[in-house]
Amino acid sequence: MAGSLFEAALSEHASDIEKALDRLLPRVEGPESRLAEAMRYAALGGGKRFRPFLVAQSARLFAVNSESALRAAAAAECVHIYSLVHDDMPCMDDDDLRHGKPAVHKAFDEATAMLAGDALLTLAFEIIADPATHERARVRIELVRRLAAAAGARGMVGGQMIDLKSEGAPLDIGGITRLQLLKTGALIAFSCEAGAVLGRASVEAEHALHAYAHDMGLAYQIADDLLDAEGDTDLMGKRAGKDAAAGKATFVSILGTDRARAQARMLAEQAVQHLDLFDERADLLRQAAHFVITRRN
Amino acid sequence: MAGSLFEAALSEHASDIEKALDRLLPRVEGPESRLAEAMRYAALGGGKRFRPFLVAQSARLFAVNSESALRAAAAAECVHIYSLVHDDMPCMDDDDLRHGKPAVHKAFDEATAMLAGDALLTLAFEIIADPATHERARVRIELVRRLAAAAGARGMVGGQMIDLKSEGAPLDIGGITRLQLLKTGALIAFSCEAGAVLGRASVEAEHALHAYAHDMGLAYQIADDLLDAEGDTDLMGKRAGKDAAAGKATFVSILGTDRARAQARMLAEQAVQHLDLFDERADLLRQAAHFVITRRN
Repeated sequence: MAGSLFEAALSEHASDIEKALDRLLPRVEGPESRLAEAMRYAALGGGKRFRPFLVAQSARLFAVNSESALRAAAAAECVHIYSLVHDDMPCMDDDDLRHGKPAVHKAFDEATAMLAGDALLTLAFEIIADPATHERARVRIELVRRLAAAAGARGMVGGQMIDLKSEGAPLDIGGITRLQLLKTGALIAFSCEAGAVLGRASVEAEHALHAYAHDMGLAYQIADDLLDAEGDTDLMGKRAGKDAAAGKATFVSILGTDRARAQARMLAEQAVQHLDLFDERADLLRQAAHFVITRRN
Repeated sequence: MAGSLFEAALSEHASDIEKALDRLLPRVEGPESRLAEAMRYAALGGGKRFRPFLVAQSARLFAVNSESALRAAAAAECVHIYSLVHDDMPCMDDDDLRHGKPAVHKAFDEATAMLAGDALLTLAFEIIADPATHERARVRIELVRRLAAAAGARGMVGGQMIDLKSEGAPLDIGGITRLQLLKTGALIAFSCEAGAVLGRASVEAEHALHAYAHDMGLAYQIADDLLDAEGDTDLMGKRAGKDAAAGKATFVSILGTDRARAQARMLAEQAVQHLDLFDERADLLRQAAHFVITRRN
């Protein structure tokens, strides 16, 4: 079955990225060892590693060497993980559970969680800036520029701010779309484009990947809202139903379950069409678009 | 008087960096406007701008153009400011006052403060990565690499972690020295070396600036401890006496006031000697070493 083949590929890649993160994260030593411990606790041993997978698959289209792809993938994942660590803290979403284990601020403490998040974000840029990521400085700095833009005030953090403010003042469909394009879409787009940057791809190829990321990212988010509305906490490894509890509008609360599901399907199909200029090396990206709307957690 | 001439130069530069930050910080617009507001509140209208001054003065030694120097200086300041915003939060130092006004988490809220800090750190890398910082990608990526190393788990954040852990378990003089070299010294060293990177200086010049930064940074910190032990809250614009209250060892608690003051003076003199290979263009850096041990806030 295509689905389980895809999941096998995803899981194989997850184990590669786990090893890369283990290698790139600071060692646990010295009086600051608690920081490295918390970073490792947050980063290792869990998660679908979906963003790193997108980096690896986009890199594959342009025959980028695997060390370059792994390092860019690890950087994207560090940014994702730091955002989860900070998001879970009491002053934000106040979630005690992440990937089925206590969140960093519960396993350690709030101060350590904040510092571990800060250090993971910083590490992302340190990883990319290292010459081991790509021999050309121009390629490395372009990745830094895009990652910073995707992660910052006009990207992910801006989306988190809108998300916070939307509690009690629900957004309309346009507002939610923009929120999600910033909060999750920007880093997904970075992940899909990173391979094109590393492979010095044509503008046309890069635009196709950007369009793919746009539609696939929204499909991913609608599926997330569906899971949050219907999912169970044990399977997801994080608290379900929390958007409704926070009085937040979601794609599902506005569109209803059926229309939301149809919209996700339409976006996933559209995402696949953007890949028409690529050969069979894009097949896992095509399957990924299907996967995001059928996943159970 | 040399002292007041130096302070005039510092204050003139502070106004340049204020304008640069105003230009580089995101505009207050859109549903995420609260984030930009908090970033601007944290970054504008206060502070000695000592790190940016060091960037500008080191850049001056190598005739770096002023836009390049200002941008690198703004990036260093963004990292410094983000660290203050996070440091002031209740889970860290729990300080309500910064530069004589309410800390960001008091003026806004904790979630906004955390996100504003995250976005300021990210902005630092975005500023450096922009081609406007330097025409050569190699120079920009070297700045990113060094800033990330100075700010991360093996630099500033590592130092913050040691600082947190030292509450109730006071460090010895070696431990405090290492803590401060990480917590404040690494970003000061980045600031002193940034000009050399931008100006593609000789290794010899760079090493001299690194050695200067090392001694001047420690002198700065000892002076800070002296101010904390003796200073008054009104003049400092932040709470005084907090190290003693937290049961932390400091240079002053271990060495005593007189020896600490003598040590700071010795380090400042040593810092100046490292600048012997530079001509009169290094005079403000020489005066800076004197300034850090005589300042009143």
